[in-house]
Amino acid sequence: MHIRTMLHRAVDPSARTQGVSLFNLVICVLILMAVLVAILETEQTLVDQFLGFFRVAEWLFFVIFVIEFCLRVYVAPLNPRFSGRFGRFRYLFSFWALIDLLALLPFLLTATDATAYYLRLARLFRVLRIARLGRFTQAWRLLGGAFYTRRYELLVSALVALLLLLVSSTFLYLIEAEGQPEAFGSVPRALWWSVATLTTVGYGDVTPDTAAGQFFAGLTAVAGIGLVAMPTGILAAAFSDAFQKKTVEN
Amino acid sequence: MHIRTMLHRAVDPSARTQGVSLFNLVICVLILMAVLVAILETEQTLVDQFLGFFRVAEWLFFVIFVIEFCLRVYVAPLNPRFSGRFGRFRYLFSFWALIDLLALLPFLLTATDATAYYLRLARLFRVLRIARLGRFTQAWRLLGGAFYTRRYELLVSALVALLLLLVSSTFLYLIEAEGQPEAFGSVPRALWWSVATLTTVGYGDVTPDTAAGQFFAGLTAVAGIGLVAMPTGILAAAFSDAFQKKTVEN
Amino acid sequence: MHIRTMLHRAVDPSARTQGVSLFNLVICVLILMAVLVAILETEQTLVDQFLGFFRVAEWLFFVIFVIEFCLRVYVAPLNPRFSGRFGRFRYLFSFWALIDLLALLPFLLTATDATAYYLRLARLFRVLRIARLGRFTQAWRLLGGAFYTRRYELLVSALVALLLLLVSSTFLYLIEAEGQPEAFGSVPRALWWSVATLTTVGYGDVTPDTAAGQFFAGLTAVAGIGLVAMPTGILAAAFSDAFQKKTVEN
Amino acid sequence: MHIRTMLHRAVDPSARTQGVSLFNLVICVLILMAVLVAILETEQTLVDQFLGFFRVAEWLFFVIFVIEFCLRVYVAPLNPRFSGRFGRFRYLFSFWALIDLLALLPFLLTATDATAYYLRLARLFRVLRIARLGRFTQAWRLLGGAFYTRRYELLVSALVALLLLLVSSTFLYLIEAEGQPEAFGSVPRALWWSVATLTTVGYGDVTPDTAAGQFFAGLTAVAGIGLVAMPTGILAAAFSDAFQKKTVEN
Repeated sequence: MHIRTMLHRAVDPSARTQGVSLFNLVICVLILMAVLVAILETEQTLVDQFLGFFRVAEWLFFVIFVIEFCLRVYVAPLNPRFSGRFGRFRYLFSFWALIDLLALLPFLLTATDATAYYLRLARLFRVLRIARLGRFTQAWRLLGGAFYTRRYELLVSALVALLLLLVSSTFLYLIEAEGQPEAFGSVPRALWWSVATLTTVGYGDVTPDTAAGQFFAGLTAVAGIGLVAMPTGILAAAFSDAFQKKTVEN
Repeated sequence: MHIRTMLHRAVDPSARTQGVSLFNLVICVLILMAVLVAILETEQTLVDQFLGFFRVAEWLFFVIFVIEFCLRVYVAPLNPRFSGRFGRFRYLFSFWALIDLLALLPFLLTATDATAYYLRLARLFRVLRIARLGRFTQAWRLLGGAFYTRRYELLVSALVALLLLLVSSTFLYLIEAEGQPEAFGSVPRALWWSVATLTTVGYGDVTPDTAAGQFFAGLTAVAGIGLVAMPTGILAAAFSDAFQKKTVEN
Repeated sequence: MHIRTMLHRAVDPSARTQGVSLFNLVICVLILMAVLVAILETEQTLVDQFLGFFRVAEWLFFVIFVIEFCLRVYVAPLNPRFSGRFGRFRYLFSFWALIDLLALLPFLLTATDATAYYLRLARLFRVLRIARLGRFTQAWRLLGGAFYTRRYELLVSALVALLLLLVSSTFLYLIEAEGQPEAFGSVPRALWWSVATLTTVGYGDVTPDTAAGQFFAGLTAVAGIGLVAMPTGILAAAFSDAFQKKTVEN
Repeated sequence: MHIRTMLHRAVDPSARTQGVSLFNLVICVLILMAVLVAILETEQTLVDQFLGFFRVAEWLFFVIFVIEFCLRVYVAPLNPRFSGRFGRFRYLFSFWALIDLLALLPFLLTATDATAYYLRLARLFRVLRIARLGRFTQAWRLLGGAFYTRRYELLVSALVALLLLLVSSTFLYLIEAEGQPEAFGSVPRALWWSVATLTTVGYGDVTPDTAAGQFFAGLTAVAGIGLVAMPTGILAAAFSDAFQKKTVEN
């Protein structure tokens, strides 16, 4: 029983009020490495060269993460949230346990299986696990709280963005459809240009030719600054509030 | 009379202090769907394939929105703003009723009519209706108030932006006109490059060739950061003020 | 003398505590129109078509702005800053009077004169005159004050930007010089790519080819976000301070 | 001894509570000039033309910076941090002295030496020296303190950015790999497009072709706005806090 308590302190990030256990730090690094391997495996030229390495790495990660998962299930009842009779069962169906399970699945399926191919995506989400460690949890909650408090303001700016997107793509469609039917022949086509301009990405693969089109494109680009400025301003104000509240509490 | 009161509570968003009625939620979804259909209809390949679907959808949306409009007119007098003798009449000429009417017009005209084609734009503005629902109204007012309070500061930064735009396009015109007459042959032509650079969109369809041109283009790009930073900073400070005032009031 | 006082109230924006006189509003519109004409005149196709119009407009603007200038000189002594013996003389050498004079010069020289060509630039700066009207002066001062208070912080972030610019262009030069000598053959050449990336403009006329180059380019792009975020954050905080101080004073 | 005290006041920026000594101002300008020369030397066409000038400049800078370094070592013991027996020795191994030494090294090696070539990079970091002058030190510390206080929030937003980067490049890879194997044939390849889009740089050398690809690219571009807004908001709030604390202290 004593070992389980020690394990719990090492495995469960919520068991500590501050700092990160060595175990979780190692798991963090392993998750990042597993994600890196999963990414590199999609490059055929690397797979051809280092097939053996990738096979061994996949196996190793699988074994390690299965052991980690079993450990987490083993110590789960020591967490008040999963104590009691069906505690372990409830843990199995908690959000993070499901993410972990989903990330283990692709190892079980053969590599040629198309489902495994798509399931590998699940591994990426394990990156979020890092956000649950020690001080990160607090920062995560603070940022999330600020977002939540200002959700209506952010949605209003999203609505304004949607309207700008629709209006600018409609204008460009009306003006440029004749000259460039491939790029501006319909509103959905013009949306590709519109979203690239309003977000100030500006690929430049599609640009208006006519003077009128360039005039409206210029207006759209200027509106794009507002589109960046509004959510940034809302978030800055919300974070400022959240930081001050936390300081007052302490 | 009892039914009209119930209808009023369902139809008029200002009749509730908080929350959104099911009726308005459904109308919201329908507006977004009608906008989506209007957008997809401009794509000829889709119209050729799904002509029947689009015809039915147009008819359905027309009927629904006519009923909605009639309901709104019917319950308008229960709103203090439109009570009294000519209440319904005054409602008909209110801003939102005109937007609604304008959005209904294109259905009445035949599809081949050029006016209908342009009037369809009016439908896009109905997206703004969503901003009038429940908590959104408050967020909308808060953001608008912040904009209004800092209108002079925002206009000053717009003036600085205008000057930067003019100066940078004039410089590029003086430097690059000879080498690239098509793109930089006059200040209005150079403005296209200038607006794309200052807003940090950067299409890259037109770029300076000479070393001097690239030097001034670099300065313009750096100035562009300031152009983004100034309104963002003003808005962030204005929102911060507005949020704090609201907290103090409550 | 009575007429001069009335003229002074109409002409000198500092004679009123708030609002803008009709005279200055008209001058504002005329300045914007004169700038527009000066810009359009650089487009040869327009000059060929509307030569008469441009000649008349130039003459008209010249006459109007000369009268305006004389009026300003006439009423200058009523402003405490330019009262006394050499008041009008001192006004003639004040910053804004010189800008006005400079903007009048190109009209006097013939159009074929190369100097007139470049002096026309001076007209652009008259746009700034608008910033001296009524409430704008206050906003202008508030923004300028915020900039001045945080000048060291802004300079430090400019220094960091300079270092990032130098380091990223040096890295790209070391990596890509061999493959693309035209674009990355020296640090000054690589700077063109570097400034476009760090300011998130991203023309895309020059991009790294090799994997190592793209890796460092990615790091540069991410650093570019910091480059935008730092001055924006500093300005937002500075404006927030300035707005609050002003509220406390009132 | 009197001369050494005077020298110390001129050489060591921490010897003054405010302002910058003439000596350090000159050194600042010389550092910027040396960096400029080091940059221009990489351009072969300039070296061919002005070989003599570059050789003289290199020699001059070497002599000046050696004298400066010796002076700094000579007066180091007057700084409390480097007083006592091995003070000068400890100064030699301090961070800034090592940077200075590293920046001197490339002059000693012959120009054809490959190591000298890379060591020249060290000179760039001397630009940071400017940040240690007078009021800059304070601004530097204030900004650094704000970064440090919000390090967890900034790391969380970096984590979210990493996840967005991985998810968007995986989606684009799944959708576009077939059509454009060169640009989207693997997740690492798609990362190049992904980082350019999420940072809103948008080179446009690689863009999705298919409708599904463009849809996800649009979502990525919109997410990119959030990626810019989050750190900006955090920094703005952090700077606002730091400025206010400093005001309270004074």
